[in-house]
Amino acid sequence: MNAAIAPDAAFDLVVRNARVATAGDVFDADIGVRAGRIVALAQGLAAGASEIDARGRWVLPGGVDAHCHLAQPTSDGSRMADDFVSGTRSAACGGTTTVIPFAAQMKGQSLAQAVRDYHAVADGKACIDYAFHMIVSDATAEVVRDELPALIGQGYTSFKIYMTYDDMKLGDREILDVLDVARREGALTMIHAESSDCIAWLTERLLARGLQAPRYHGLSRPPVVEREATHRAISLAELLDTPILIVHVSGPEATDQIRWAQTRGLSIYAETCPQYLFLTADDLEGEGMHGARCICSPPPRDAASQQAIWNGLANGTFQVFSSDHAPFRYDDPQGKQPQGPDTPFNHVPNGIPGLETRLALLFSEGVLEDRIDINTFVALTSTNPAKLYGLYPRKGTIAIGADADMVIWDTDTPRVVHNAELHHNVDYTPYEGRLLRAWPAVTLSRGKVVYEDGVYRGQAGAGQFLQCEKPAPARTARSRHRHLPWLSALADAAS
Amino acid sequence: MNAAIAPDAAFDLVVRNARVATAGDVFDADIGVRAGRIVALAQGLAAGASEIDARGRWVLPGGVDAHCHLAQPTSDGSRMADDFVSGTRSAACGGTTTVIPFAAQMKGQSLAQAVRDYHAVADGKACIDYAFHMIVSDATAEVVRDELPALIGQGYTSFKIYMTYDDMKLGDREILDVLDVARREGALTMIHAESSDCIAWLTERLLARGLQAPRYHGLSRPPVVEREATHRAISLAELLDTPILIVHVSGPEATDQIRWAQTRGLSIYAETCPQYLFLTADDLEGEGMHGARCICSPPPRDAASQQAIWNGLANGTFQVFSSDHAPFRYDDPQGKQPQGPDTPFNHVPNGIPGLETRLALLFSEGVLEDRIDINTFVALTSTNPAKLYGLYPRKGTIAIGADADMVIWDTDTPRVVHNAELHHNVDYTPYEGRLLRAWPAVTLSRGKVVYEDGVYRGQAGAGQFLQCEKPAPARTARSRHRHLPWLSALADAAS
Amino acid sequence: MNAAIAPDAAFDLVVRNARVATAGDVFDADIGVRAGRIVALAQGLAAGASEIDARGRWVLPGGVDAHCHLAQPTSDGSRMADDFVSGTRSAACGGTTTVIPFAAQMKGQSLAQAVRDYHAVADGKACIDYAFHMIVSDATAEVVRDELPALIGQGYTSFKIYMTYDDMKLGDREILDVLDVARREGALTMIHAESSDCIAWLTERLLARGLQAPRYHGLSRPPVVEREATHRAISLAELLDTPILIVHVSGPEATDQIRWAQTRGLSIYAETCPQYLFLTADDLEGEGMHGARCICSPPPRDAASQQAIWNGLANGTFQVFSSDHAPFRYDDPQGKQPQGPDTPFNHVPNGIPGLETRLALLFSEGVLEDRIDINTFVALTSTNPAKLYGLYPRKGTIAIGADADMVIWDTDTPRVVHNAELHHNVDYTPYEGRLLRAWPAVTLSRGKVVYEDGVYRGQAGAGQFLQCEKPAPARTARSRHRHLPWLSALADAAS
Amino acid sequence: MNAAIAPDAAFDLVVRNARVATAGDVFDADIGVRAGRIVALAQGLAAGASEIDARGRWVLPGGVDAHCHLAQPTSDGSRMADDFVSGTRSAACGGTTTVIPFAAQMKGQSLAQAVRDYHAVADGKACIDYAFHMIVSDATAEVVRDELPALIGQGYTSFKIYMTYDDMKLGDREILDVLDVARREGALTMIHAESSDCIAWLTERLLARGLQAPRYHGLSRPPVVEREATHRAISLAELLDTPILIVHVSGPEATDQIRWAQTRGLSIYAETCPQYLFLTADDLEGEGMHGARCICSPPPRDAASQQAIWNGLANGTFQVFSSDHAPFRYDDPQGKQPQGPDTPFNHVPNGIPGLETRLALLFSEGVLEDRIDINTFVALTSTNPAKLYGLYPRKGTIAIGADADMVIWDTDTPRVVHNAELHHNVDYTPYEGRLLRAWPAVTLSRGKVVYEDGVYRGQAGAGQFLQCEKPAPARTARSRHRHLPWLSALADAAS
Repeated sequence: MNAAIAPDAAFDLVVRNARVATAGDVFDADIGVRAGRIVALAQGLAAGASEIDARGRWVLPGGVDAHCHLAQPTSDGSRMADDFVSGTRSAACGGTTTVIPFAAQMKGQSLAQAVRDYHAVADGKACIDYAFHMIVSDATAEVVRDELPALIGQGYTSFKIYMTYDDMKLGDREILDVLDVARREGALTMIHAESSDCIAWLTERLLARGLQAPRYHGLSRPPVVEREATHRAISLAELLDTPILIVHVSGPEATDQIRWAQTRGLSIYAETCPQYLFLTADDLEGEGMHGARCICSPPPRDAASQQAIWNGLANGTFQVFSSDHAPFRYDDPQGKQPQGPDTPFNHVPNGIPGLETRLALLFSEGVLEDRIDINTFVALTSTNPAKLYGLYPRKGTIAIGADADMVIWDTDTPRVVHNAELHHNVDYTPYEGRLLRAWPAVTLSRGKVVYEDGVYRGQAGAGQFLQCEKPAPARTARSRHRHLPWLSALADAAS
Repeated sequence: MNAAIAPDAAFDLVVRNARVATAGDVFDADIGVRAGRIVALAQGLAAGASEIDARGRWVLPGGVDAHCHLAQPTSDGSRMADDFVSGTRSAACGGTTTVIPFAAQMKGQSLAQAVRDYHAVADGKACIDYAFHMIVSDATAEVVRDELPALIGQGYTSFKIYMTYDDMKLGDREILDVLDVARREGALTMIHAESSDCIAWLTERLLARGLQAPRYHGLSRPPVVEREATHRAISLAELLDTPILIVHVSGPEATDQIRWAQTRGLSIYAETCPQYLFLTADDLEGEGMHGARCICSPPPRDAASQQAIWNGLANGTFQVFSSDHAPFRYDDPQGKQPQGPDTPFNHVPNGIPGLETRLALLFSEGVLEDRIDINTFVALTSTNPAKLYGLYPRKGTIAIGADADMVIWDTDTPRVVHNAELHHNVDYTPYEGRLLRAWPAVTLSRGKVVYEDGVYRGQAGAGQFLQCEKPAPARTARSRHRHLPWLSALADAAS
Repeated sequence: MNAAIAPDAAFDLVVRNARVATAGDVFDADIGVRAGRIVALAQGLAAGASEIDARGRWVLPGGVDAHCHLAQPTSDGSRMADDFVSGTRSAACGGTTTVIPFAAQMKGQSLAQAVRDYHAVADGKACIDYAFHMIVSDATAEVVRDELPALIGQGYTSFKIYMTYDDMKLGDREILDVLDVARREGALTMIHAESSDCIAWLTERLLARGLQAPRYHGLSRPPVVEREATHRAISLAELLDTPILIVHVSGPEATDQIRWAQTRGLSIYAETCPQYLFLTADDLEGEGMHGARCICSPPPRDAASQQAIWNGLANGTFQVFSSDHAPFRYDDPQGKQPQGPDTPFNHVPNGIPGLETRLALLFSEGVLEDRIDINTFVALTSTNPAKLYGLYPRKGTIAIGADADMVIWDTDTPRVVHNAELHHNVDYTPYEGRLLRAWPAVTLSRGKVVYEDGVYRGQAGAGQFLQCEKPAPARTARSRHRHLPWLSALADAAS
Repeated sequence: MNAAIAPDAAFDLVVRNARVATAGDVFDADIGVRAGRIVALAQGLAAGASEIDARGRWVLPGGVDAHCHLAQPTSDGSRMADDFVSGTRSAACGGTTTVIPFAAQMKGQSLAQAVRDYHAVADGKACIDYAFHMIVSDATAEVVRDELPALIGQGYTSFKIYMTYDDMKLGDREILDVLDVARREGALTMIHAESSDCIAWLTERLLARGLQAPRYHGLSRPPVVEREATHRAISLAELLDTPILIVHVSGPEATDQIRWAQTRGLSIYAETCPQYLFLTADDLEGEGMHGARCICSPPPRDAASQQAIWNGLANGTFQVFSSDHAPFRYDDPQGKQPQGPDTPFNHVPNGIPGLETRLALLFSEGVLEDRIDINTFVALTSTNPAKLYGLYPRKGTIAIGADADMVIWDTDTPRVVHNAELHHNVDYTPYEGRLLRAWPAVTLSRGKVVYEDGVYRGQAGAGQFLQCEKPAPARTARSRHRHLPWLSALADAAS
């Protein structure tokens, strides 16, 4: 050991001999942790109160899952299978150390109240840290004028809006109202981009013809429906010169729109999810309600779409890789089949579980199959979401001052996915039976082991709520290099 | 004279020594007319009862102006300056021999009633032939299920829908309803593509800051607003695999979307107008209400946009060149300045006059400046609209069996545009003072001279109403070469 | 009959009750022919010295096959199976009334001499009219400075250049020299766009590994090789602001480049051929030399490429549809297998026969399957090539003054393609066994029947040589609307 | 000070209170250096033998200038003004700690000999570390078969090839030969993409008309000339499925090609330089030979091109930002005006100086004007070139184990560029008079101060030669996810 550094037991923990990867770098170091933070990186650190030897293993920043749904209130009688206890447990076991679920406003409800309510749901339950996105489903004058700016100031700096779902969707004018707040306040707007009207029109006709099996879910939401809404969202953001992030992009049609916007220099960000890499429309097939397990929106597409998504991960079109974990059980009458074996597709709660498998899937099939490099993996799953949602540099990296949220990876022990071995509270996983070549060996949350060698070691309530800073892309003044005469006219008149 | 052909005076009229251009051809011939139709083309025809010598001059099919507004009822108290008398007179003097104005449904009104009402407005007034497009502004179940199919069967085979204007616009779901009728019945849908919500949002803010002069009309409808709606319209048509025609495209952003759709093999048609070739946003400038004369929607853009439109005319992106004649007077309290010199831009009736200058502008600056060839001129101004709207082969060409609607052009006498010399009932033209190198010398409607050397010679009431066939592009079964699984599922279930 | 027209037998021929289609129009008329020209179109013409009743049948302009090889001298010892006798006979029987084969310059040869030599080959043999393209394979200073301008002035206004084939290809600098002549003189340059270096590199490696069967021909010329050369050709034309025509485009990669150029407003024209609609790489498979029958360059691709070509025909990307007839026999030692059953693919003479089947294939699968309309068919196969190569209006249409080159089509009698029934001198057709729904019933060359109901009725030597005008696109001054500073500088300095 | 870490003076140097930015991260730390390497990062390090307080200042990885020319032998009699002494001195004073100049093979020369010769030129002169790219200008069988593979194995893992310059350029077939070596050996090929033939053709004509002033240099190399070669280079790389890097991209035409390739998933990398952000064609204007100072190839374009390049830096199209330093003096008869005041543009040595100003320009106008963020700055100027050229992780970052190459930046003291204050051996800078807001305050090379507060403190000969690893992108097996049948056929046959 190198005598030059820290002779007394100054570290609570030293992760020794780590092969660290960040979004930009790869290096070998010992990692010194004190009071839950990374305080030293060096070759040959003094001993810690506890030690973990990571020799020969990748040590990566803990995952930030920026898109997951936990115990979220619903308006249709459905019930999510995971709360903050089981959800964060599952996340931790999958290598994720920060989750950002959604404080969802119901129509007619105060947004601030929705946030307060959701804190009550979350308090004392999480075993890892968490922040909230908001969902704005009722953009009243009060919400836009008062609540949103105030909440942004209080550390809720990102919100999702929907272009579909009757109980959630905003009209284009409301979207502009919300984007205008985001622009002025420096918040980031996430957009679920599917055309509500097209889906409703198709659904009505499918059902009228008795086509109600799970497989028709996909036909009710063709790629053009997602593409149209994506173009529209981009256009609204372009009109107001404010960044947005398109969530859960499913295939080439929407991806092309996003890439085109980025090529033109717009601040359009995009997220995709495991279901668009590993599932297809075929997974909605099957006897009875079997296909319901893979009902999510947008729906999984086809093999060519999967390739397009891989492409977009490799060439930088996507910045974020999330799970969109939305957990519903088969054996719960408020779960996947509320009307039993004849539940029409449009009454199946949307969503699939994925908190625990997100990282292992991408590491195995992305990094180890040479589709993306290790730095891109870290960026997509941890650093970028932390930056985009105002959690960086506390979260999202292994660097001095950051929280000691880390995962030691085992890439030597291929293991098959079995739902029985997962830690969520859902009675299936869409990835059952898939062999993965990389799995978390140890997950550390602020320096504490929360998962180790197949065993959950976390503690409900240990996780802290995180206030978010204003997201980096929303802070930068890109617009001063772009001339939008309508905005200039408004700004000149206002000043 | 060639003895071999027609010795007796079998023709009502012979246009002799014509240099004819059609959409596809250029040839020299005498043109024999009988009973209002072209019955012979030959070199050396027998004498006609009357004769016109066209030696050295282009003889082209009379113009078909497929987008003009005449005595159209409004819901905002505005009044159009031209009815079927002055409107068709002006058209005839400008070389146009067929107009297709709009029978506009008001919200709450029966569409069939709107058509009947509009016939009452038109009856006995036109000096040239006319057909009707319909405007569907209230797509009720009855309209969609009963009225539209019935009217299509009766010869009203095209209709326009609006994505903007509060008293006209349809939501996306209604648009799908209407497109679905068009698909099933073989009609053609014209779409005014601008995003209503964006315009309303910007307008509200401009007015709130006191920015109400005509120039702000342009800022309230930026190109991105037109592009978004154009993409959306294309997507809706793509979803249902039915052709549409985007009217009055103003610049490169919307044009790019259209071109992209055409490149992918979709049946997307497009129209542009003189205002997008010859006016810019600068024409909305000026003291007081001066700029109101050029208020139309979409608004004129800039010089680069003009070039993009020229490009689109030359490379086949646009199929139709119309006037979008929408006549309002300055000195009419129901005209261009209903609130006097302080009329806010959003209360200025939209539209500019153009029936009479459409062809001369394009011939002079397009054909004579080598931007487009003579066949393209004919196609854009006459043949294509006749085909697209079901008037071909009766209208739109010089060929055996076609109506003898023809224009003899004078390209030797440059003349400056003066509103005083035009024949519409509007007290200005946006092209005042512009020198044009080509003007109609003689206009013939079904073989009758309706205009000659500066003098109107038509007769109100001589014009006939034209029932339209189903448009060619809507008849063809392009879709059998394209697989859209959602349509297949619906079709399979229905059969 | 209508007494008003032509009582005496003034016409040599009347084609009665024709359903005529031109590039722009469809009309019903009697067609009066005198001295080989169309002199009258009317409903109810006087009797002709001879008459043909076409009731119920399409009468279209005779085909102009602007890309075919007949008795062309070669430098590799191969021998074409068709001369002007058999080639034009086959053409006539397939509905083609004008062919434009190539007067090919050999390296080291005078271009003028090549033209003279080729006249000697052709004189007195053709049964239909013909013009010559030139092939410039040795762009010496003399050729560029003297011969080309002189020959263009003498009616040889188009020439092809090759970017591949060792005995033909020009380097980029020579191509610029030739394009510069074309620009100054108003000629049109056709370009065979495949990268010579890439092909040579791949071929060498394939052969070195013993991969010499016909199937490897396709692998030696992948789509990217064609795309690269297409982009290069477009760039050279763009640099000099002169039109070019890319011949025999095979699939989406090259098509996309062409479409992109057209979208930007460049005068880039394009041709495709039946082999890219009806053959694929699978047709190069088979025992022994079987696949050699479909060896042509670029090679046939795959089903998706066929669809892309159909798309380009429908949306206007392609202006010309030619056969690229290049006839070689299997039983000729100078034919398809010069080294017998082990002939390596690169020693198989390139080309397939197609003069006689070109029109029937496109009519059957294009028009009758609703992929293109009848006007587009005429434009692609007759009018456009006539215009682009300076033969219009004498050739390419049914209009007053045009040569009476016409085809009466039978669309009621489906017939299978059998080489035994074709009139070329090749011992196979790649389309053997294909059922076609449209076939020429009668072919007329300048008013004379040259084919009727399966029987050739032409006469070798009746065909005339046609001097070509300067092509329309090369005459127009598109460049005055485009500013290319390097050309301006050169022009300014020269003046 | 934090007692927990390193009480004794174990570090040779501690940079204290650094605000560190890497390609992925920003953090505050003390940086501990020992034996020239970064061995500790912590908050509160023990004292070092020497200390530098960086409080309030950015500390970034030292720049890697991956494209610069120093004392490079020429074949035209020109002489570079900077050798390894003055060049690396200037680099160090500008914040660059690694340079990668070119060991240039002359036609006819052994490549290995060129490398040996260049070592002789460099030995004992550099004050900072350096590696070599090779220039392959004569791709003989021996070079391709023997020399290149051997040299790659010896640590020369990247080479540049030229598509222009008579004494350098390779034909397409030679390029394929070289790319094939790169593919097999895992090396990276840099390509200067301009069409030689087009440039020669234009140059000849410009000179023939007496247009020889510096300004005509730009007209001899229009953007389309660069675009064509870029497309060609991409196509050749695509054919062989091997990565390339396009050097010094000047504007939107070439950028669009690169972006399009990246969008399709190809491993195409790109570099741009300060001259394309800060100069335009106007800088080639001026009296006499004044404009020669900005003659480089490709030439600077226009303001819109500058914006396109900024765009490409921000959206990830470019990975590398280099100087392309090519130093020639005005007062040297072998410099910028070898034929005196009448030197024709094509005899002016190409290139401009830029080693010392590269980083300050991009920091000032990029980072401080919010066009790119600080991580992107580091990635473009240091991390990415280190990775792409096999120097990472030794160079290109501030991380444990990396060389202690660092720059402490002063962003508080705007300073005007004056050539008199620069440290190169050129008698001008194109940026004379420009006010920059960021300058290096201290440059450290392997822990030694080589520049501080305006004063050069380095030592010729202290710099080490660096052997390069195989570049990361060339190591990855992207191709196993792409099917190229021609490569498969070759591979199958070979195995």
